[in-house]
Amino acid sequence: MIKAKVAELLNSTQYLQEVQVKGWVRAFRSNRFIALNDGSTINNIQCVVDYKNMSEDLLKRITVGAAIKVKGTLHESQGSGQKVEIQVTSVDILGDADPEEVKLTILSPKKHSLEKLREQAHLRVRTNTFGAVMRLRSKLSFAVHSYFQNNNFHYVNTPIITGSDAEGAGEMFKVTSFDLKDIPKNEDGSINYKEDFFGKETNLTVSGQLEAETYALGLGQVYTFGPTFRAENSNTSRHLAEFWMVEPEMAFCDLDKNMDIAEDFIKYVLKYILDNCQDDLAFLEQRLANEDKAKPEAERSPMALTEKLRFVIENNFKRVSYTEAIEILKNSKPNKKKKFKYIIEEWGADLQSEHERYLVEKHFKCPVILFDYPANIKAFYMRLNEDGKTVRAMDILFPGIGEIVGGSQREERLDVLKEKMAALGIDEKELWWYLDTRKFGTCVHSGFGLGFERLVQFATGMGNIRDVIPFPRTPLNAEF
Amino acid sequence: MIKAKVAELLNSTQYLQEVQVKGWVRAFRSNRFIALNDGSTINNIQCVVDYKNMSEDLLKRITVGAAIKVKGTLHESQGSGQKVEIQVTSVDILGDADPEEVKLTILSPKKHSLEKLREQAHLRVRTNTFGAVMRLRSKLSFAVHSYFQNNNFHYVNTPIITGSDAEGAGEMFKVTSFDLKDIPKNEDGSINYKEDFFGKETNLTVSGQLEAETYALGLGQVYTFGPTFRAENSNTSRHLAEFWMVEPEMAFCDLDKNMDIAEDFIKYVLKYILDNCQDDLAFLEQRLANEDKAKPEAERSPMALTEKLRFVIENNFKRVSYTEAIEILKNSKPNKKKKFKYIIEEWGADLQSEHERYLVEKHFKCPVILFDYPANIKAFYMRLNEDGKTVRAMDILFPGIGEIVGGSQREERLDVLKEKMAALGIDEKELWWYLDTRKFGTCVHSGFGLGFERLVQFATGMGNIRDVIPFPRTPLNAEF
Repeated sequence: MIKAKVAELLNSTQYLQEVQVKGWVRAFRSNRFIALNDGSTINNIQCVVDYKNMSEDLLKRITVGAAIKVKGTLHESQGSGQKVEIQVTSVDILGDADPEEVKLTILSPKKHSLEKLREQAHLRVRTNTFGAVMRLRSKLSFAVHSYFQNNNFHYVNTPIITGSDAEGAGEMFKVTSFDLKDIPKNEDGSINYKEDFFGKETNLTVSGQLEAETYALGLGQVYTFGPTFRAENSNTSRHLAEFWMVEPEMAFCDLDKNMDIAEDFIKYVLKYILDNCQDDLAFLEQRLANEDKAKPEAERSPMALTEKLRFVIENNFKRVSYTEAIEILKNSKPNKKKKFKYIIEEWGADLQSEHERYLVEKHFKCPVILFDYPANIKAFYMRLNEDGKTVRAMDILFPGIGEIVGGSQREERLDVLKEKMAALGIDEKELWWYLDTRKFGTCVHSGFGLGFERLVQFATGMGNIRDVIPFPRTPLNAEF
Repeated sequence: MIKAKVAELLNSTQYLQEVQVKGWVRAFRSNRFIALNDGSTINNIQCVVDYKNMSEDLLKRITVGAAIKVKGTLHESQGSGQKVEIQVTSVDILGDADPEEVKLTILSPKKHSLEKLREQAHLRVRTNTFGAVMRLRSKLSFAVHSYFQNNNFHYVNTPIITGSDAEGAGEMFKVTSFDLKDIPKNEDGSINYKEDFFGKETNLTVSGQLEAETYALGLGQVYTFGPTFRAENSNTSRHLAEFWMVEPEMAFCDLDKNMDIAEDFIKYVLKYILDNCQDDLAFLEQRLANEDKAKPEAERSPMALTEKLRFVIENNFKRVSYTEAIEILKNSKPNKKKKFKYIIEEWGADLQSEHERYLVEKHFKCPVILFDYPANIKAFYMRLNEDGKTVRAMDILFPGIGEIVGGSQREERLDVLKEKMAALGIDEKELWWYLDTRKFGTCVHSGFGLGFERLVQFATGMGNIRDVIPFPRTPLNAEF
């Protein structure tokens, strides 16, 4: 007898083989057909029960959500939609699922809203949609590691708790072991951080970039892939307080090569899931198509999910300077007709989501890399161009998602970097170690950050970022 | 002309080929031999300079730590210790390193203590030892992912910020967006967490296990690999406040299979680095041998580093019940002669590091898996045995490291779990979602946690855990 996973059995042609499989009941029709799933694939295996030879008590316990062990023989399926089925010889109930209690959960067999599913994030992975999303997320993570390891990047775990508050990427969460009811104070009333666990103020990291830079300047090519945090009160479908970020950093690499690597990387990981997640993608594509049907025609996706993925893989990302983009936007219809909320009047304007979407979705109709932004709307560590007013920054914009990558060539010149920090009031003492990298064998180097959940959104077609991470953290929500 | 990394050039036999390479100067001898490294390998490439045809000013700037670009032709090397060298035609200085300033850092070419290196964690990766350790850590990470992905486990990112304080694995750090100088209070003087970012008290996770269990009971086999935290004032060479943990969790898996998987997993990842990190391992082996020479003979490692790795891969881990272990310990010489700090007198005693080391290093002389521990010294979620006094727990103990894995079969019976929680005063409301998994299709399941840094310590031979993570976090230390 073969003990196997559902995924293996569905691909088997060893008919008449005795098999055993364990999983959860997804449906039980006509006291005869069990749809069994064990998480190894989106597809259920059909287990055909001879109800005449089974006790009524046992039959009653084969309910949606129950864990069971099925023994039987593998047969070519007569029904449509599956190749094989199990002719069941015995069923053991491993764990019951009381139908009355199931009714109160999202396990009950009816359509539940995504909002409802979120409230039961511990159970939603047992649904088709979340099973598919989370398997795909796992494969996409592995594709990220595979790409960098194949290209001789070294994985670096930069610190999550940081003593540096100069990362500048956003509001930070505080980390402390103080008893909040009784925080030690100095004589002048300020907080005595010397008594805290780390002897100083500490926060959750918003980016591992600065630390990764120090590693790139020793190991050559490195990448991080870990959690990052923003204590920002953004209650949108695009923001999480806790999310995973991929941050490669390369020595001896300028902005052009940085864009090449970012584009090559994104194409590799999307190709990887096209090649390795066909069943889950087929389900998610159909799901998206069904969702689209309920929308007005103008709002529907112009392409099916896998078509969209192939489009990104097969076409060059359009590279456009900020200056060109401003010209395009100034002369665009929505700008002239004042349809934009923020009218683009002159060079220097910060681009809003509406402008990015116009460029990507209306004007170029493909992923766009914007580069050479005005210095004063970008971070201090970006390399100043010879014009003295733009920096070697780049953002990759995706249809439907917006910014998916933000990167830059880093300012490698100690004097220029110090000037920039002084102008922004960043204390050199805070970043003494970062400045050291510019003192000892500095070199041209670049890197980028990719918001992993946005990539998962793009790859799965899920509209809300809370639905592509197992247990989302957002304002007023840290359940589980 | 070929632009290449040092690692590629050292493996090349394309003699007389024109090449270009960028890296950092590790040494410059006799105004003639540059040892150049770019982080792609522990080995430097020798670049032979014709100093007569080079300006004195340029020669002076070829200093330890400087970033340079070298052009030249590849030649079979005449010297010992390397196969190829570059006969240099030109050198460009990309980034200077002022020898007077270098002298004040760990980049200066002399032996620095590991303590000193830790204070300059942003530069230590440019040393041979830390380059080797961090490359190896990266490969070991990838081996972890590869093992689980090859075996159809799904990677799950469990939350870092947790609203649950019942994980029970240790002291937690608090996460807050409160202004610590002005924390909102309720009328009764208690803290008004409703005004905090998440509307409740939140902490940094000590383990993703409970959340991973909910995923295993949907996806079948999952694993986490992410940072975990302990706010414990342990200033030892074995503890970090922030460390990375691997936590697989498998449905339909009992303790025996759990031990099989853990052993197979450890052997796979160690084999992976033996196969893929030969140069770095050779260096680290030599380093350890040199360190050992300075020690009294009794304290030296009985095996060389790679010999030790091969020993673990090729031998079965010894599986011993807690009850057997207690008998062995009771009758051991150090126990009878009262050499143990904690004398083992009877069944039920918690094992200390000295006992574990005795079993592994003196008695069995191989990795040991201890299982079936007394229930009252283990966590609430471990499955109670039929004897009513032991639980299906297992710890894997390694020579020199101690506990590297802790795992168990989980208590899948709702009633038994509730009793256990009640006895320990754990509020059911806190873990309503965890209890749900036992209500809806519960099943036998198991998992374990592996402290990733301990594994890196074992694989690299580094004695202090602070030297196997880029930027260690320990009491009073969160620099960088």
